[in-house]
Amino acid sequence: MSYTLGELAQLSGSKLIGDPAVWITDVGSLDDAGTGQISFLTSRRFEIHLPTTGASAVILSPKYATNCPTNALVNDNPTLAYAVIATALTQTERPEPGIHPSAVIDATADIDPSARIEPHCTIGADVRIGPDAVIGPNCVIADECAIGRGSHLVASVTLGRRTCLGERCLVHPGAVLGADGFGLANDDGRWVKIPQLGRVMLGNDVEVGACTTIDRGALKDTVLHDGVKLDNLVHLAHNVEIGDSTAIAAQTGIAGSTRVGAWCTLAGQAGLSGHLEVSNGVHISGQTAITRSLHEPGIYTSTVPALPHAEWRKNFVRIRQLDELSRRIKALEKALQAEGRDQRAEDQNN
Amino acid sequence: MSYTLGELAQLSGSKLIGDPAVWITDVGSLDDAGTGQISFLTSRRFEIHLPTTGASAVILSPKYATNCPTNALVNDNPTLAYAVIATALTQTERPEPGIHPSAVIDATADIDPSARIEPHCTIGADVRIGPDAVIGPNCVIADECAIGRGSHLVASVTLGRRTCLGERCLVHPGAVLGADGFGLANDDGRWVKIPQLGRVMLGNDVEVGACTTIDRGALKDTVLHDGVKLDNLVHLAHNVEIGDSTAIAAQTGIAGSTRVGAWCTLAGQAGLSGHLEVSNGVHISGQTAITRSLHEPGIYTSTVPALPHAEWRKNFVRIRQLDELSRRIKALEKALQAEGRDQRAEDQNN
Amino acid sequence: MSYTLGELAQLSGSKLIGDPAVWITDVGSLDDAGTGQISFLTSRRFEIHLPTTGASAVILSPKYATNCPTNALVNDNPTLAYAVIATALTQTERPEPGIHPSAVIDATADIDPSARIEPHCTIGADVRIGPDAVIGPNCVIADECAIGRGSHLVASVTLGRRTCLGERCLVHPGAVLGADGFGLANDDGRWVKIPQLGRVMLGNDVEVGACTTIDRGALKDTVLHDGVKLDNLVHLAHNVEIGDSTAIAAQTGIAGSTRVGAWCTLAGQAGLSGHLEVSNGVHISGQTAITRSLHEPGIYTSTVPALPHAEWRKNFVRIRQLDELSRRIKALEKALQAEGRDQRAEDQNN
Repeated sequence: MSYTLGELAQLSGSKLIGDPAVWITDVGSLDDAGTGQISFLTSRRFEIHLPTTGASAVILSPKYATNCPTNALVNDNPTLAYAVIATALTQTERPEPGIHPSAVIDATADIDPSARIEPHCTIGADVRIGPDAVIGPNCVIADECAIGRGSHLVASVTLGRRTCLGERCLVHPGAVLGADGFGLANDDGRWVKIPQLGRVMLGNDVEVGACTTIDRGALKDTVLHDGVKLDNLVHLAHNVEIGDSTAIAAQTGIAGSTRVGAWCTLAGQAGLSGHLEVSNGVHISGQTAITRSLHEPGIYTSTVPALPHAEWRKNFVRIRQLDELSRRIKALEKALQAEGRDQRAEDQNN
Repeated sequence: MSYTLGELAQLSGSKLIGDPAVWITDVGSLDDAGTGQISFLTSRRFEIHLPTTGASAVILSPKYATNCPTNALVNDNPTLAYAVIATALTQTERPEPGIHPSAVIDATADIDPSARIEPHCTIGADVRIGPDAVIGPNCVIADECAIGRGSHLVASVTLGRRTCLGERCLVHPGAVLGADGFGLANDDGRWVKIPQLGRVMLGNDVEVGACTTIDRGALKDTVLHDGVKLDNLVHLAHNVEIGDSTAIAAQTGIAGSTRVGAWCTLAGQAGLSGHLEVSNGVHISGQTAITRSLHEPGIYTSTVPALPHAEWRKNFVRIRQLDELSRRIKALEKALQAEGRDQRAEDQNN
Repeated sequence: MSYTLGELAQLSGSKLIGDPAVWITDVGSLDDAGTGQISFLTSRRFEIHLPTTGASAVILSPKYATNCPTNALVNDNPTLAYAVIATALTQTERPEPGIHPSAVIDATADIDPSARIEPHCTIGADVRIGPDAVIGPNCVIADECAIGRGSHLVASVTLGRRTCLGERCLVHPGAVLGADGFGLANDDGRWVKIPQLGRVMLGNDVEVGACTTIDRGALKDTVLHDGVKLDNLVHLAHNVEIGDSTAIAAQTGIAGSTRVGAWCTLAGQAGLSGHLEVSNGVHISGQTAITRSLHEPGIYTSTVPALPHAEWRKNFVRIRQLDELSRRIKALEKALQAEGRDQRAEDQNN
C-alpha cells in the first residue's frame, strides 16, 4: 500500500515537518532507504546516519527534528509511530478462505467459511475455528480446541486437546500449546503420572514465539490474558497465569502455578520457581532467578556478568569462601575493637 | 468411569472415613469441586479451602483427617493416591487401531494390527511399531526405528533413524529424538562434521516433554533407562546416559557423554558439562551449573537469587573484586597480628 | 564403503604404521571394535582401552603410536582424521531425486530435477530449491525461500517467508528459521507489533540443530556466515549476525542485533544481550552472561559452579552483603591505619 506523508502523519499521530504530498511506498533503514521510503530514528546508535539519509521521510523524536535533512514525522514515541506506519505500508491482502484438500478434518469440527486451512493440517473432533482465522501448513489441532476470530497459526503449530485461543492471536512455528504438564507422584522411587486435565486459555492479541511450550493445567487452567507476548523457546508450566500485556523474552521458563502480573517484562533466560506471585509492573533481567514472590513493582536482577577467564577463576572460587570471609571480617572488627579497648584501658592506666 | 468411594479407597490403598457407597465420577479442586467429585489436599497452601469444600470426598494425609468436613480418603502419600484415582476416573477408551490413509508408510515397515497411525505421519523403512502403540498426527519416524508396546507419540514428534522406544513411553509434541549430536572436528578453523552413528535408546515408561531434543550417540548410544521423565525443552547431547526414574525439569541441558544416575531430580534450567559422572540420588537446583562429577548423593546448588536492581548493581560489581577483598582481609589479619606482636613487644619493653 | 588402510591413511593425511592392505569396512569404539573396524584414541580418558583393543587399526596422535597393539594411523589431529575416515566409511548413496506425491507444492516453485522432496512437505510460491537438495518429510517452506545446492532439511523443519540457505547446509528436525522477531512498540501499556520485514540468510555449510530458532530481521537481515554450526534449542533473535565458522552449543540465546565474529565458540546456555559486538576468536563458557561488547579475543566466563546445598545457603546469602563487606574492610583498613598513626603519634609523644 502507498500513502502520502500527510496520511501517514495523521495515521500515526505525528507532526509533519515537510511536504504532505510526498508518496511513501515502503520502509527502509536510515543508511539504506531511498526515494519513496520512510525511515526512523529510535536510538542514538543510528544518529550518525541521519545527515546523509536518502529516505523521503524520517520518523523521529522532537530532539532530532531540527537536524533532519528530509521530511520529518515528529513523534514522542517514534517506535510506535514506525510500528503503525510500517504495518500500514506492508499489509498484505487477506489470504483466500478455504480448506486445502490435503487437510484432515474431523466431521464434527466447526470451521467458519471465512477461515483458511492450509495443507497437511490435522483437525480433531469438536474443534471450532472462528471467522478469518488462518491455520498454516502442517498444524495439528486436537479435539475440542477453539480458535477465535482472526487468529493465525503460522505453520507446524500443535495444540493439545481443549486449548482455547482468543481473537487475533498469532502463534509461530513449532509452538506447542496444551501438552501435559510435568506432574508426577513418587511411589517409592517410581514416578506415577498425575493426569493433566486442565486447559491452556489464551486471551485476545496474544503472540506465541517459535518452539515455545505452554503446558495445560493439571486440574484448573493455564491462563494467558489479553495482549501477552511470548518470544521463542519460552516454557510456561502447568497452571501458570500471565497478566495483561506482559512480555516474556526468549528461553525464559516459569515453573508450575506461578502467577505473573500485568505489564511485566521478563528478559531472556530468566527462571521463575513454582507457586510464586509476581506483582504487576515487575521487570526481570536476563538469566535472573526468581525464587520468591515479588510483591512490589520494580526491576529485579541476578545476572552474573562475564569476566575474562583468568579473572573469573581467581574471583569465583572465592564465592564458596564468602561466609568464611564474612566471619573473618567480623573477627577483625572484634579484635580491633578489643584492642581499641585495651589501648584505651592502657591509656587510662598510664 | 465412575467408582464408589469404597472402590477408590481400595484402589489407592487409602483409609476411608465416611460412606463407601458414595459414587465418584470426576475430580475437582478443593474450592471448585461439587457433588460426585473427589478432591485432594496435598499442600498446606490449599488448607484454607478444606472447611468449605463442596467435594463429595477429599484425599488427604492423616494430619488433616479430623478437619475434613466430608468423606475422607486418608493416605500417607495423598499425591500418589490422587494420581491413581484421577487416572482411574479419567481414563478414556483406547483409540481405534488402524492406519489413516494420509499416512505415508514404507512397505517394509512392520506395524502391529493393534497400533494406530494418525494422519500425515511419515514412517520409514524397516520401522517396527508394537501392539497398542499410538502414533499421533504429523509424526515422522525415520528408517529402522522401533516403538514398543503401548507407546504413544502424541503429535508432531520426529524420530531420527534407528531410535528405539521401550513400552508405554509417552512423547509430547515437537520432541526430536535421534537428531545428530554436535560433533565437529576442527581443521584449521573450519569445522568438519563427525558422523553421528549411535542411536537413542529409551527404556520402558519414559516420558519426553514438548520440544525436548535427545541426540543420537556419536558411536555408542544415548540411553535413557526405565522410568526417566523429561519435561519440555530439555536438551540431552550425544552419549548421555540417564539412570532409572530420574526426572529432569524444563530447559535443563546435559552436554555430551555425561552419565546421570538413578533417582535423581534436576530442576529447571540446570546445566551439566560433558563427560561427568553424577551418582544416584543427586538433586540439582534450578539454574545450577554442574562442572564436576558428583560422587555423593545430595542437593547441589548454584542458583543466584535476584535482588532489587539497585542492590544488585552495588553488590554484584564486587564479585570481580572478591579475590582482592580476600587479600585485603588477609593483609588486615597480618597487620593486626603484627601490631599485636608489636604491642606485646612494646609492652615487654616498657 | 570399504577401504584399505593404505587408502584411509592417504585420505586422512595420516602416517601408517602397519599393513596398508588391511580392509576396513566400519568404525568402532576402542573397547568394542573388532576385525575390519577402525577405532580412534582422541582423549586420555580412553587410553586404558588401547592395549586390549580388537580393532584392526587405531587412529591416534604420535604420543600413543608406540603403544598401539595393532595397525596405527598416526595424525597430529586424530579427531579430524577420524571425521574424514568415518565420513568415507559410512557414506550412503544419494537418495533418489523426485517429489513425493503427498507433497503440496505451489505451481510457481522452481525445484531442480535432482532434488528430493519427501512426504507431507508444503512448499510455497516462488520457492527455489537447488540441485541435490533434500527436503525431508513434513517440512514447510514458505513463499520465496531459496535453498542452495546439496542442502538438507532432515525433517519437520519450518522456513518462514524469504529464508535463504546456501550450499550444503544441514538443518535438523524442529528447527524454525524465519519466524518473526520479537519486535514490539509500547502504546501506553499495550504492545503494538512492529512488522518483521527482514530475512534469514545462511551461508554455505551451515548446520542448524534440532528445535533451534533463528528469527528473521526486523528490516535488514539476520545473517549466518559460511560454516556456522548451531546446536539444539539455540535462539538467535532478529538481526543477529554470526561470523564464519563460529560454533554455538545448545540452549544459548543471542538477543537482537548482536554481532558475533568469526571462529568463536559459545558453550551451552550462554546468553548475550542485544546490540553487542563480539570480536573474532572469542570463547564464551557455559551459562555465561555477556552484557557488554567484547573487543578482544579470549575466554569469557561467569559460570557459577555448584556447591552442596548447605554450603550454598551460607555463602550465597552473603552475595547481597558484598557491598557492605567491602565497606567494612575499608573501614577496618582506615581504623588500623588511624591506630597506626595514633600509635606512631603516641610513640612520638612518649
